Amino acid sequence: MTGSAIKQILKGDGRAVASLMSLIEDGDPKVKAVLKRIYPHTGKAHVIGVTGAAGTGKSSLIDRMTAEYRRRKKTVGILAVDPSSLFSTGAVLGDRVRMREHFVDDGVFIRSFATRGSHGGVSAAVREAIHLLDAAGKEVIFVETIGVGQDQLEIAALAHMVVVVLTPQMGDEVQGMKAGLAEIADILVVNKADLAGADETVQQLEALFVDEDFHIVATSAIKNQKIDLLVECIEQHRKESVDNGKYQSKRLNLCRQELLSLLREKVFAELAKKIADDSLETQVKLIAERQIDPYSAVDKMAKRIGI
Amino acid sequence: MTGSAIKQILKGDGRAVASLMSLIEDGDPKVKAVLKRIYPHTGKAHVIGVTGAAGTGKSSLIDRMTAEYRRRKKTVGILAVDPSSLFSTGAVLGDRVRMREHFVDDGVFIRSFATRGSHGGVSAAVREAIHLLDAAGKEVIFVETIGVGQDQLEIAALAHMVVVVLTPQMGDEVQGMKAGLAEIADILVVNKADLAGADETVQQLEALFVDEDFHIVATSAIKNQKIDLLVECIEQHRKESVDNGKYQSKRLNLCRQELLSLLREKVFAELAKKIADDSLETQVKLIAERQIDPYSAVDKMAKRIGI
Repeated sequence: MTGSAIKQILKGDGRAVASLMSLIEDGDPKVKAVLKRIYPHTGKAHVIGVTGAAGTGKSSLIDRMTAEYRRRKKTVGILAVDPSSLFSTGAVLGDRVRMREHFVDDGVFIRSFATRGSHGGVSAAVREAIHLLDAAGKEVIFVETIGVGQDQLEIAALAHMVVVVLTPQMGDEVQGMKAGLAEIADILVVNKADLAGADETVQQLEALFVDEDFHIVATSAIKNQKIDLLVECIEQHRKESVDNGKYQSKRLNLCRQELLSLLREKVFAELAKKIADDSLETQVKLIAERQIDPYSAVDKMAKRIGI
Repeated sequence: MTGSAIKQILKGDGRAVASLMSLIEDGDPKVKAVLKRIYPHTGKAHVIGVTGAAGTGKSSLIDRMTAEYRRRKKTVGILAVDPSSLFSTGAVLGDRVRMREHFVDDGVFIRSFATRGSHGGVSAAVREAIHLLDAAGKEVIFVETIGVGQDQLEIAALAHMVVVVLTPQMGDEVQGMKAGLAEIADILVVNKADLAGADETVQQLEALFVDEDFHIVATSAIKNQKIDLLVECIEQHRKESVDNGKYQSKRLNLCRQELLSLLREKVFAELAKKIADDSLETQVKLIAERQIDPYSAVDKMAKRIGI
């Protein structure tokens, strides 16, 4: 990537950003050199993770919040992380169609981010994409993930704050989600609040988290209701956490997580070199023949390669 | 765990198996010593991964296949892997209720396996659970995972073969799943074949995979139709792959994956010790202040700790 392309990225040029974004998705080794150069220009964006089960209306909600942030003259980046699933690809991409109105707005960059993350996994690639949007001057960055499996835990290691989207239909399910929600959520949204049972769900959540300082907001993305309240809530949460020092320690923690993840990646690569001789295959055969168990084999190999 | 408990496991005693299974779920450090002792008795089970989107009827299908295998006098182990998700816990556990009839059968061990995998992640814990059921004499082991995110890729690194469950309702979606299916599936099941469109879905799949040697079977778990055909198909696939040598190389590959994953886990632990001094925090602060980028920081640290 040329110096002038880097200048274009720092100016927020959509095409230059899109082009580096594609390289990040592909896991291109050229990416790191560029990120090293743009990294000094990062650290200004507010990164908001938005997670929740499929069908809770995350995309519509982000769409509406984006419009609200644009009204407030903030630039917005949106990464809809598609975990390259056999079974979910269609849905995530389909959702994006709804955001078409923002595609013509220079202040918004939208990307349905499909990657398996060739080096350090999906999280590493998403971190790179966040740095890119941050350097390109996006002031608010939404990272949308489908909350399944371990994904919703990882989002907390990527974003400054996490919005979890629920719906009134979830009813008693929330009870079983208490520990998980307490672990990752900063703001709980009961979306589709136009449906029956919304008030009860909010009351249920308030009772459940009476000891936490959660913000709980009921919205209807489809009817565009209470979106301004939600954005106000996000901004208030940010202000509060800057004032009480939590924001700064969260920022440090994100840097720590990224550094550790990069270190692991590096150690993996070195490990692969060290075991590239035939000793690996010898052990594999012995394990397959049940002449040694894998746990003892690892102890032996670790000793041999000096770990 | 005492020697007599280990003897009980090897005899297939349900309570001894359940007790070690709980320790595996908890990530208890005592587990490895026991696994080392039972490992020589493993390697006999046929491990079948069953994956597919929520609502495709995976659990019912496994339930019916279990009955068919029992009719054939085979013992069966079932691990329903619950990825400890905020949003999916209820569904997986609810499904299990349907299998109640097998709970009183000594030849079947069923476990809804909920773990975050304290050391090497969920995959490591599932591998341990498979070894346990294998050592306990279960001849067929079903590993059920919800196919979301990266999970369905991991199942291929855990099982001898993978059955992917689809439904007639998926229609044109399968087109977009071609690459993913080709990568992991050995057998494609169109379940809920009592619904309209089943024949078309089978034809679509046959056209899509005309160059692959997939087995494609249409079943109805709920009406108990074609389950014997599916089991026959699994057995035939196994026989074929033993005959053409693919089974042996798959077995080697599973051992290789496990060994590499254990090696990584070990290297992580050593890495954590090496960076436990304050150099990590110094770098974190420099990164947060944008005085260094994380990529250069890693290069520096790696050098210092001699990676």
